[in-house]
Amino acid sequence: MTTELSPDSLTGLLERARQDYQDLAGRGLSLDLTRGKPAPEQLDLSAELLSLPGGGRHTSADGTDVRNYGGLQGLVELREIFADVLQVPAEQLLALGNSSLELMHDCLVHALLSVVPGAESRWVDQERIAFLCPTPGYDRHFALCQRFGIDMIPVPMTPEGPDMDAVERLVAEDPAVKGIWCVPKYSNPDGVSYSDETVARLASMQAAAPDFRIFWDNAYAAHHLTDEPVEIADLLAACADAGNADRVFVFGSTSKITAAGAGVAFFGSSPANLKWLLANNAKRSIGPDKINQLRHVMFLRDADGVRAHMERQRALLQPKFEAVARILEAELGGTGLARWTDPKGGYFVTLEVPDGCAKEVVRRAADAGIVLTPAGATHPYGDDPRDATIRIAPSYPSLAELEQAMHGLTVCVRLVGYEQRAR
Amino acid sequence: MTTELSPDSLTGLLERARQDYQDLAGRGLSLDLTRGKPAPEQLDLSAELLSLPGGGRHTSADGTDVRNYGGLQGLVELREIFADVLQVPAEQLLALGNSSLELMHDCLVHALLSVVPGAESRWVDQERIAFLCPTPGYDRHFALCQRFGIDMIPVPMTPEGPDMDAVERLVAEDPAVKGIWCVPKYSNPDGVSYSDETVARLASMQAAAPDFRIFWDNAYAAHHLTDEPVEIADLLAACADAGNADRVFVFGSTSKITAAGAGVAFFGSSPANLKWLLANNAKRSIGPDKINQLRHVMFLRDADGVRAHMERQRALLQPKFEAVARILEAELGGTGLARWTDPKGGYFVTLEVPDGCAKEVVRRAADAGIVLTPAGATHPYGDDPRDATIRIAPSYPSLAELEQAMHGLTVCVRLVGYEQRAR
Repeated sequence: MTTELSPDSLTGLLERARQDYQDLAGRGLSLDLTRGKPAPEQLDLSAELLSLPGGGRHTSADGTDVRNYGGLQGLVELREIFADVLQVPAEQLLALGNSSLELMHDCLVHALLSVVPGAESRWVDQERIAFLCPTPGYDRHFALCQRFGIDMIPVPMTPEGPDMDAVERLVAEDPAVKGIWCVPKYSNPDGVSYSDETVARLASMQAAAPDFRIFWDNAYAAHHLTDEPVEIADLLAACADAGNADRVFVFGSTSKITAAGAGVAFFGSSPANLKWLLANNAKRSIGPDKINQLRHVMFLRDADGVRAHMERQRALLQPKFEAVARILEAELGGTGLARWTDPKGGYFVTLEVPDGCAKEVVRRAADAGIVLTPAGATHPYGDDPRDATIRIAPSYPSLAELEQAMHGLTVCVRLVGYEQRAR
Repeated sequence: MTTELSPDSLTGLLERARQDYQDLAGRGLSLDLTRGKPAPEQLDLSAELLSLPGGGRHTSADGTDVRNYGGLQGLVELREIFADVLQVPAEQLLALGNSSLELMHDCLVHALLSVVPGAESRWVDQERIAFLCPTPGYDRHFALCQRFGIDMIPVPMTPEGPDMDAVERLVAEDPAVKGIWCVPKYSNPDGVSYSDETVARLASMQAAAPDFRIFWDNAYAAHHLTDEPVEIADLLAACADAGNADRVFVFGSTSKITAAGAGVAFFGSSPANLKWLLANNAKRSIGPDKINQLRHVMFLRDADGVRAHMERQRALLQPKFEAVARILEAELGGTGLARWTDPKGGYFVTLEVPDGCAKEVVRRAADAGIVLTPAGATHPYGDDPRDATIRIAPSYPSLAELEQAMHGLTVCVRLVGYEQRAR
């Protein structure tokens, strides 16, 4: 990433960066690029949800009164809509609460406190539990591991998914390795989609732990940003074909499809895993909010309805991702100070700055009123050993705010990058 | 409960009971008195919810967009409505998902896996954990204990609440006793409301465990069946006054106020406990369904709105409870075969039959097409040592169905009771 500069030109570049930063800091900005939150305009696309199901209807397709208790699996007609999107047959898919993160948390809890299919004992009774963490990754996955005292083993991401040589070796050798976090499509934060070979190897690899699980967080399954939607291979089917039917827990939700806080989450898996989760869930709840599920059925209608809705989402998001790419290229292209991803879907752009600069860039940006996700958040324990990765979340701000924030961020990258070179 | 009968009159009574049972069995009934589910007419009272919040509004009182992520505490305006009902100041009350059972489950999970305020270690790391179970009690409380390997110690219920001499002794002596389940108002199943003295003693008693907790499941706080609503003392305040501020977890929900499957659940406690729960919840979720909370605010409006709504619920429920009492009195009064409760609120009537008869009554009723909660469900481990307690849930069937079912049940009680006497 480095380009040789003469001392004179470096001095000039640093001087200009300092002036630009001074201007920036003087502007009194207050902008936020931290989280992958939908913008209000995106939420407006689902305005109809707010009046549904309406007075006339309160039964599901099978005649269940959705207002009452019961129905631990969720409405079958909603599961049918999302079977295709999530690559899970409707009969192996559950529609539950408003958050897939909750389902991931609860699967960990149930595995810790109840014996998961294939396990010899509860995870909490085992000496040590470890999860592989493809890195960079999603900070909330890492926070769950940290909370439950699960060791995190970073594995580098490649353009095809996690480094499968490393994954295969670690999973085959160490029976304490009970799981791996995967965001297989348009991954958080670097937008990578897993290749067919990666999926095949995940399904068929040897595991030392009989209760090894892939936490397949398919959060961006329908969240395309181009005319060529990425397809990934069907891991659930591949696992069954490879004789490892119980290996995968599939997660998904409508959080970034309809209402971020009031959507529906999904869990898909093998019959044995479903039975295990349902038995545990039955102790915890008398059923999910089925009115909200009916609301979603009436609003989305079918898989085509989801696709059409996601096209409308894309129309709002794509210009923001284009603005990010355009400003990064215009301000940092050719400087040797940065590389960035060009995602085909999902919610994030990863910006890589020179080693040792990410924290300082985030600090300078915050001082100038631009809040970014903390540097390191993309890594287990918040520790990015190279201190080089910054996650950009373009969805929430307006296009004008985003452009201001991105321009400001590039000023900070130039300032910190040239300062480092000048030392 | 026994009345002496001459052999002749017993023969006649038994003969009549046998004939009545034969008639009953021949009727091909299919009736269900198992669960405390609201009837469709009760759910109709909240029909307005199905079209709310409507297209025009999606912000909470503080301007938060309820459609988006965030807001782990729930809407303050909803917490204000229920502060009064649940005797918890709004700032110490959280509004969360659709089920208080989930919150009880999760509090157990968090105490097992994260150190609860006052604890020396995680509960899962302790040799033994026990909960006191006032008996008869709620089967789903007991199921949670059983699932997590928490020992259950039955404590007899009295007309004032649990036998406080027993509670005080067990809690003071045994540091493994970490909790007690309480349904303090119109308790499940016997309709008892705790006396002020019981509440005062719960608040001030000595506990051997520094992390002892009262799970205060105030499920029927607003669920009156008479003109004289029962008031119970404020345990949260009493605990604080007694220097045991962290002792109580208060639970409640709108499940039996609005929609059973699509309501809002509440958790109230001390600032230290709230902080603990919120920190754990923050790892699990990016916030509850705030649209549903706004919906409830718009529908219920204020505490008076809740009261008026519960009067409409009472108008539907009271005739059912009256029918139960009327039929029990007409068919079993003076037989010496049964005693029953006359609850002033809540969802259940407890029927006590002669020792050793409850399972057989439930079996005979099922054979005649009348499904009851399994005998023993009201006791820890499903084991009613006297085999005498039957829980009746009158809410769900129509009045006509309920009358049929109750008549049939009394036939079964006479049959099984007189058969026992004749042996």
